[in-house]
Amino acid sequence: MQTLRITLEQNEIPTHWYNVAADLRSPPSPPLGPDRQPATPEQMGAIFPMPLLEQEMSAERWITIPEEVRQIYALWRPSPLCRALRLEQMLGTPAKIFYKYEGVSPAGSHKPNSAVPQAYFNKIAGTKKLTTETGAGQWGCSIAFAGQMFGLPVRIFMVKVSYEQKPYRRSMMQTWGADVFASPTTLTQAGRDALAKDPNSEGSLGIAISEAVEEAAASSDTCYTLGSVLNHVLLHQTVIGLEAKKQFDKVGLYPDVIYGPCGGGSSFGGIAFPFLADKAAGDKRAANLRCVAVEPTSCPTLTKGAYAYDFGDASGYTPLMKMYTLGHDFMPPGIHAGGLRYHGDSPLVSQLLHEGIIEAMAVPQVATFEAGIQFARAEGIIPAPESCHAIRAAIDEALRCKATGEPKVILLNLTGHGHFDMASYDRYLAGKLEDYDYPKEAIAASLAHLPKVG
Amino acid sequence: MQTLRITLEQNEIPTHWYNVAADLRSPPSPPLGPDRQPATPEQMGAIFPMPLLEQEMSAERWITIPEEVRQIYALWRPSPLCRALRLEQMLGTPAKIFYKYEGVSPAGSHKPNSAVPQAYFNKIAGTKKLTTETGAGQWGCSIAFAGQMFGLPVRIFMVKVSYEQKPYRRSMMQTWGADVFASPTTLTQAGRDALAKDPNSEGSLGIAISEAVEEAAASSDTCYTLGSVLNHVLLHQTVIGLEAKKQFDKVGLYPDVIYGPCGGGSSFGGIAFPFLADKAAGDKRAANLRCVAVEPTSCPTLTKGAYAYDFGDASGYTPLMKMYTLGHDFMPPGIHAGGLRYHGDSPLVSQLLHEGIIEAMAVPQVATFEAGIQFARAEGIIPAPESCHAIRAAIDEALRCKATGEPKVILLNLTGHGHFDMASYDRYLAGKLEDYDYPKEAIAASLAHLPKVG
Repeated sequence: MQTLRITLEQNEIPTHWYNVAADLRSPPSPPLGPDRQPATPEQMGAIFPMPLLEQEMSAERWITIPEEVRQIYALWRPSPLCRALRLEQMLGTPAKIFYKYEGVSPAGSHKPNSAVPQAYFNKIAGTKKLTTETGAGQWGCSIAFAGQMFGLPVRIFMVKVSYEQKPYRRSMMQTWGADVFASPTTLTQAGRDALAKDPNSEGSLGIAISEAVEEAAASSDTCYTLGSVLNHVLLHQTVIGLEAKKQFDKVGLYPDVIYGPCGGGSSFGGIAFPFLADKAAGDKRAANLRCVAVEPTSCPTLTKGAYAYDFGDASGYTPLMKMYTLGHDFMPPGIHAGGLRYHGDSPLVSQLLHEGIIEAMAVPQVATFEAGIQFARAEGIIPAPESCHAIRAAIDEALRCKATGEPKVILLNLTGHGHFDMASYDRYLAGKLEDYDYPKEAIAASLAHLPKVG
Repeated sequence: MQTLRITLEQNEIPTHWYNVAADLRSPPSPPLGPDRQPATPEQMGAIFPMPLLEQEMSAERWITIPEEVRQIYALWRPSPLCRALRLEQMLGTPAKIFYKYEGVSPAGSHKPNSAVPQAYFNKIAGTKKLTTETGAGQWGCSIAFAGQMFGLPVRIFMVKVSYEQKPYRRSMMQTWGADVFASPTTLTQAGRDALAKDPNSEGSLGIAISEAVEEAAASSDTCYTLGSVLNHVLLHQTVIGLEAKKQFDKVGLYPDVIYGPCGGGSSFGGIAFPFLADKAAGDKRAANLRCVAVEPTSCPTLTKGAYAYDFGDASGYTPLMKMYTLGHDFMPPGIHAGGLRYHGDSPLVSQLLHEGIIEAMAVPQVATFEAGIQFARAEGIIPAPESCHAIRAAIDEALRCKATGEPKVILLNLTGHGHFDMASYDRYLAGKLEDYDYPKEAIAASLAHLPKVG
């Protein structure tokens, strides 16, 4: 029998997260406040607890994972590293394809890797309530689950159109005990303003963020949580790559190339950063390692955006962050891989790309679903549309290996399962999905609105 | 850190299934053909391949699992045995609660444990096509996946009302390459008859079975597959309990009581039978072991049915089987735990109950969802409604232990996740689910129609 799944024991869950900020060539550019000066911890402290802000700013290379967090991780971690042997055979490639499968978490994706420590550090900092926004529901589910683990009430502002069209994600959040509201609500000024403008508003992620931030800022014991982009979120996600390294050690292999889907950056950073630690430490195995962030052609932040200071949200409420951006008012065309529709990207991922340490590429939508179906027929698991971006890139790499005869070791981050995305598969199978041209004019227009700095 | 997940390596996937028929006190009662005489292998051979019929009739205690099947099992097996420590703490019980989690399979339930060997043995017997029926879609998904693993086309007759109301399960089957038809179809005589009677027929499981069996019987290279009830299906499912035994060995424990949800019997048999092997062999640890099949009060086959020969299907097409039954024309009241709505039960489970080797109990619907929510908030995983029946029973046992102070070891079969059952959770959370009285009159009426034998 060929070994397909490389497993670890529970006590092999990493004891520390890896902070890539310690290994950057130049210090990270700080977030800027409304006065365009570096945002102070006090400013950020209005919505985030101090332990998470310390992680956000930290230059320490290794940050301890509290035992309480490891104990919750143990409900599903370590996640398996799997050899996609049947996919290799189907492709006829000499490459070895491995996937790290994060769909085994209760919420079905990698998001709880950060939701759990965010809930924990809020709990010990005395936070009494968490708020967040959610669109498709992935992050909402993860923070609902994590809040329940530490007895913290969670209030979720869910974009109204999703609330009505995706009742199952809402039911999951409620099953884990969260309060879910269809945004815009009458609970906040931002919500009331939106309703005054349009009583039939279907909501938007921008409005929902404003509602969640407003509630957090208005109360000293309420904090806001975010599922990607920020440094501490990417820090927490490194548990993925740290486990993968142990698993490769077990079989005496090391990846030649790593593909991670990239929207806000946490799933790419989570799998790639720990291998960059080897590169930074001069590990010879990592000398030629390529780490590639894979984004959709319809929202090509890293491949077509500007590297500049911009707001993290559409409405301009957040501090400015130095990142690749399509402009904060860029609206990507309709695409079903919801998690990758972000105008910006993680400042850490952006800086690494800018410094030439990592690479980025964009893939079109139809080809990602084609890859997802091929993967499901080979490996069984039906992947989330976000994960399909990394699968597409990995299959193309394996096919190049077939042409050249190179037996590369390819690693991809299978960030989640597609159980809640079958409507998108259905549209693909019915031939109703389309590719979108790279939206050149829309990007040019929104880039013209970048905030002026300095 | 407390150990929560007891894992096994891939090479610890069992090499043999356990056949409980070898340890029955009296030989199993044979299925009877239309002439009320024991059905011959030739009669059964019209729709099943010989290797599976041999397993169906076998008295061998241990039956080899082919390497090709173990290699596919390795895509997700061994499945984890988990300690429900947070649930124990929530209940304040001295009992130790363990769950074997089968939701890690690509289809999200235990069903692929039998779908994979059924596809494999059909493949080596020369079958060119598989047929089956599906209601909610659990079995249809599993056989679609399994057929794809061995390159066998699968044709699925899906009850029309489910086809239209549950498009996501249909999309999953299609993702794995199966052809899915809304039954009644015009492809079979049974379908055409149904449509002639009612052109707007929404279909029924009975009609769908007839269509799938008719297609299999009409073609020498097409076979029919079934997801529960039959001896060989329960045989395949023993991989669950066999792994659980190895996992308990690792931590030096042995269960005092086992709860499995019970509809057709495969999930209960799968976890319980391997422990009955210990009992039969005189293993002292198993001397006082209780194995309890848990069914819904609305479809109380084992607790309120008759032990008699009856048809396996509603329409009377199948051979007669000796089993607990509510009568083949019994229609259970609407209940959302779809997989447990079967009028009969596995002949093996039925005989073991009749002989007093195992026990049975029934639980009401609302209490099962209450248990499911409590489990999700403690352990993270949102369980399938079928699994919630075993969870309800396990929680009640743990609460009895709290009262008596007994530190029992409780094992339950967590047969699947509830990702495709959130509509039922939604109804529960909205207070719209009801309990159904034990339907005494309906059962009496259908029991009056039991076929006469001998």
